[in-house]
Amino acid sequence: MYDPSENDLSFAIKHGLDAEMRALLETRFDLGDDLVDAVLSEAGRVARDVIAPLNQSGDITGSVWNSDFTVTTPAGFKEAHRAMAEGGWCGIEAGEEHGGQGMSKVISTSVAEMWHGANMAFALCSLLSQGQIHALEVFGTPAQKATYLPKLASGAWTGTMNLTEPQAGTDLGALKTSAKPDKDGEYRIKGQKIFITYGEHDMAENIVHLVLARVEGAPEGIKGISLFIVPKILTNEDGSLGARNDVKCVSLEHKLGINASPTAVLQFGEDEGAIGYLVGEENQGLSIMFKMMNHARFGVGVQGLAMANRAFMAAKAYAGERVQGIPLDGKAGDTIDRHPDVMRLLAGMRSEIEAMRGMMIYTAGAIDLADNQLGDTAYWQSRAELMIPILKAWLTERSVALASDGVQVHGGMGFIEETGAAQHYRDARILPIYEGTTAIQANDMMYRKTLRDQGVGVRALLADISASATTAMASDNSDISATGRALAAACETAEDALGTVLAGGLSMRHAGAVSVPYLMMLGTLTGGWMALRSASAAAAQAESAHWDATFLSAKQKLARVFADHSLPEVARYSQIIQSGGAAVENITPEML
Amino acid sequence: MYDPSENDLSFAIKHGLDAEMRALLETRFDLGDDLVDAVLSEAGRVARDVIAPLNQSGDITGSVWNSDFTVTTPAGFKEAHRAMAEGGWCGIEAGEEHGGQGMSKVISTSVAEMWHGANMAFALCSLLSQGQIHALEVFGTPAQKATYLPKLASGAWTGTMNLTEPQAGTDLGALKTSAKPDKDGEYRIKGQKIFITYGEHDMAENIVHLVLARVEGAPEGIKGISLFIVPKILTNEDGSLGARNDVKCVSLEHKLGINASPTAVLQFGEDEGAIGYLVGEENQGLSIMFKMMNHARFGVGVQGLAMANRAFMAAKAYAGERVQGIPLDGKAGDTIDRHPDVMRLLAGMRSEIEAMRGMMIYTAGAIDLADNQLGDTAYWQSRAELMIPILKAWLTERSVALASDGVQVHGGMGFIEETGAAQHYRDARILPIYEGTTAIQANDMMYRKTLRDQGVGVRALLADISASATTAMASDNSDISATGRALAAACETAEDALGTVLAGGLSMRHAGAVSVPYLMMLGTLTGGWMALRSASAAAAQAESAHWDATFLSAKQKLARVFADHSLPEVARYSQIIQSGGAAVENITPEML
Repeated sequence: MYDPSENDLSFAIKHGLDAEMRALLETRFDLGDDLVDAVLSEAGRVARDVIAPLNQSGDITGSVWNSDFTVTTPAGFKEAHRAMAEGGWCGIEAGEEHGGQGMSKVISTSVAEMWHGANMAFALCSLLSQGQIHALEVFGTPAQKATYLPKLASGAWTGTMNLTEPQAGTDLGALKTSAKPDKDGEYRIKGQKIFITYGEHDMAENIVHLVLARVEGAPEGIKGISLFIVPKILTNEDGSLGARNDVKCVSLEHKLGINASPTAVLQFGEDEGAIGYLVGEENQGLSIMFKMMNHARFGVGVQGLAMANRAFMAAKAYAGERVQGIPLDGKAGDTIDRHPDVMRLLAGMRSEIEAMRGMMIYTAGAIDLADNQLGDTAYWQSRAELMIPILKAWLTERSVALASDGVQVHGGMGFIEETGAAQHYRDARILPIYEGTTAIQANDMMYRKTLRDQGVGVRALLADISASATTAMASDNSDISATGRALAAACETAEDALGTVLAGGLSMRHAGAVSVPYLMMLGTLTGGWMALRSASAAAAQAESAHWDATFLSAKQKLARVFADHSLPEVARYSQIIQSGGAAVENITPEML
Repeated sequence: MYDPSENDLSFAIKHGLDAEMRALLETRFDLGDDLVDAVLSEAGRVARDVIAPLNQSGDITGSVWNSDFTVTTPAGFKEAHRAMAEGGWCGIEAGEEHGGQGMSKVISTSVAEMWHGANMAFALCSLLSQGQIHALEVFGTPAQKATYLPKLASGAWTGTMNLTEPQAGTDLGALKTSAKPDKDGEYRIKGQKIFITYGEHDMAENIVHLVLARVEGAPEGIKGISLFIVPKILTNEDGSLGARNDVKCVSLEHKLGINASPTAVLQFGEDEGAIGYLVGEENQGLSIMFKMMNHARFGVGVQGLAMANRAFMAAKAYAGERVQGIPLDGKAGDTIDRHPDVMRLLAGMRSEIEAMRGMMIYTAGAIDLADNQLGDTAYWQSRAELMIPILKAWLTERSVALASDGVQVHGGMGFIEETGAAQHYRDARILPIYEGTTAIQANDMMYRKTLRDQGVGVRALLADISASATTAMASDNSDISATGRALAAACETAEDALGTVLAGGLSMRHAGAVSVPYLMMLGTLTGGWMALRSASAAAAQAESAHWDATFLSAKQKLARVFADHSLPEVARYSQIIQSGGAAVENITPEML
């Protein structure tokens, strides 16, 4: 059923980065065709043959909590995790010194798209472990690195993020889990954490929890939060597994989707307190967690692309098989992908997926450059920080809409669970929520990444988009010139809206009321840029024997679909930014 | 949990119709305040106290198929149906001569909004029975009316619509169920029907199936389809229940939502053939079924409003209780409905719901006038026919989006099934699919209701909207004048798009590729009209002691939210209509 988009990923990696980015990246990473082809082909095989077949059965079974506080994952999950581990995939981003592959994020994220497309509920576990590896590589002590990184990179252990408590979701400052200093620099952790993804499971011999807690006497609010490593099973001096730590899974949530993924309520310290090891300094927990969270936010954006693509592939397959005449020019015996409105839905989905994939590769490249200080670090750091909320919000919000379109293509069958389209619609719905809701991404973009630097970073992004649009307008390829014109116009509209945001007349509340439209506007615009880049890259490959002519033509025609169907959103968002905030401010809860 | 919007419904009935419509309706129906208040109050009580408490439990249990071919509905459903029947609600629209109440659709649809808001999966049964009553009142023989209508109106029996077969969904011309003439003018029906809502259940003593089938030797395609009454249990001469007919439920579907509602696969004629009675003439089945289908399409639109409103109420309640600080100006201890982005979502939902409700009341009035030939029948017939696809498509598409917004307001809790928001998101998803997908509504609007009359009906609608906008622009109420300006501008934009549609340059396929955007454009525009009408009516009541000042102010401020946040969609749809069809036409299935 699931066939990873290897060709599209391969094209995006090989031709989606401009020459400058590529050259910089190649000073540090292997991005050669041989490596790309080998990795995509092998990962595609595992995704298609090992992981994807467990998607629907995992949804039906779900992960099950047992009264001895263990969790049983769906049939086949343990074996699939072992296959991932044996293939070296758990350490794809980890440094080679810790047993990882040290690959570029450009490649590792393409592989991640395949895992999530194959089975998002399964692949979530690896997303969190990757984030933990990343955080410990930056902030762990040498001893912590030596203890945890090889185990995480090999897949023997997996990682979790423990932030949320019942009273502290978006507002992490409200968290109450406590950490009390104990002997040997250890801490004793007590408290309850909820919504802990893969907080308990049976796929690995140990689970490493990264836990936000408040050291006794710490300042109130977010300034008094520290980060701790709390392993499920403690290790002995020799590194072998020792005593069970004082943490247990007391229940699992019953969710709308990603049912195979256990969402745990974890109780820390019911007895003497769970042993925890400080990461970094006391009261620095949030900034360290942000490092991991940025990784996770990018990863969740990738899940958005993956779910949209899976929903699209299911819709395309159904539409190519389902025969229904239509009243007008439809001939009896036509499959419904010949019906114009079905094609509108499919082409719209596909064009946005192309834009999403371009955004993923571009952002991965920017993160690689920033993290490894290649080229103009300040520029790439700013660009990566700008792209992460855009990608998280736009890819996930659109994935919900596209999964819904996928249901619609199926007609009545879309509402029947056996068909599979409904699962995509259910699974996708978590994406604009977890790892920071769209509103949180929008706050980040509005306050921290626009108002704080008076729009310098955003203007630089718009300038890059505008420059591409101007170049494209001069093209003698009519798809590219038309897309360029639409993008140039959208850029001007977005600049007007940015002007309103920066003019200083907006109250903080007013800015908050238009922050999501503002972020979505930037997402749509950047998507248009990516659609254009893909079309231009395809046009440039026209003489290449490597790519099929229809494949290349599609990318050019799809950019036009994006220009005509998606880019007009920019004007709508711009209008909301310019006048819609006041309308919302007029409404009080009492009026509702 | 569910509190029917009695005040808003009451306001819409009493002040949402203009003087001319109201006067015409009152020549035939009682629309007096006494009746309205009594009906809404009593229906509200049943919805709140009897039906709503079964919504979540019904979703969890679902209706269950038994190996003796019976279906068990969730606990409490049988008793709730009896309460509906005893209250006279099953015959609210039926003529008094058949034991019904003969009420105006303006009132009955307001009651229906309450049923569906309380428990859509439960209320679906009554939606179909109402449609059947309507069809038999128009097309049944005197004997058929005497046999079936009193039983349907009393709720002793319920009705179903049997159209879909595995190979014949949207394309009804492909249906194969056969009807063979037998003795005494009876027919023998054989075939399989799928997706039959409440095709089998235990809430009533009999079920009347209306079945589309093909009489032997009939023309191919839609011209050879006839309509039959096929009761589950046959009646004796004296009207008492007799032998079991040859129809049985062989399975139920496992669905994404509305789990309490049994979606049956019905097998007709496994033995000697099910006995069926012809309705109307042979080969006239489709046009009769369209009568019932129009009723059902309107009803499904109302379900869209009801689900959106229920999702809104849940989100509002949660946001009013959930405390989370926010980084900027949020104070610790604030409930999240004080957060600007949460308010953006809530206000956006509420403003569209107000528009939806106005559209429901207006369309119900138009249908009443057309059906009863009151006033300018041609005008009201055209208007009702225009409004039905607009209402079906716009209210249902928006209900999916608003139910999704409702989940988002809940944050992580929205993804947990116990919260209830997820059920709305699942339940709503059927609405743009059943009783004709959005694409089918759009075909109807594009080909039959725009191109066929060269836009006469649509232009008349736009002229009415434009006239209201012009009047509003001159108001000294700033909310109304601003909404009027936005609506006038949107009207002009829509007229440009209509010009493109009517210019004759569009191929049939091209028109099909932009038909959904065209219909959604009309929906958004008409929604804006309704938001303005509600605001104007509220302003006109400013001196009335009957309505709370905040209640009246809200309707005026919400119109402005609609103008700023929803109306900009018109420009996007218009742009797609003017340039986006060609982009879709460039894409072939091979390119995807």
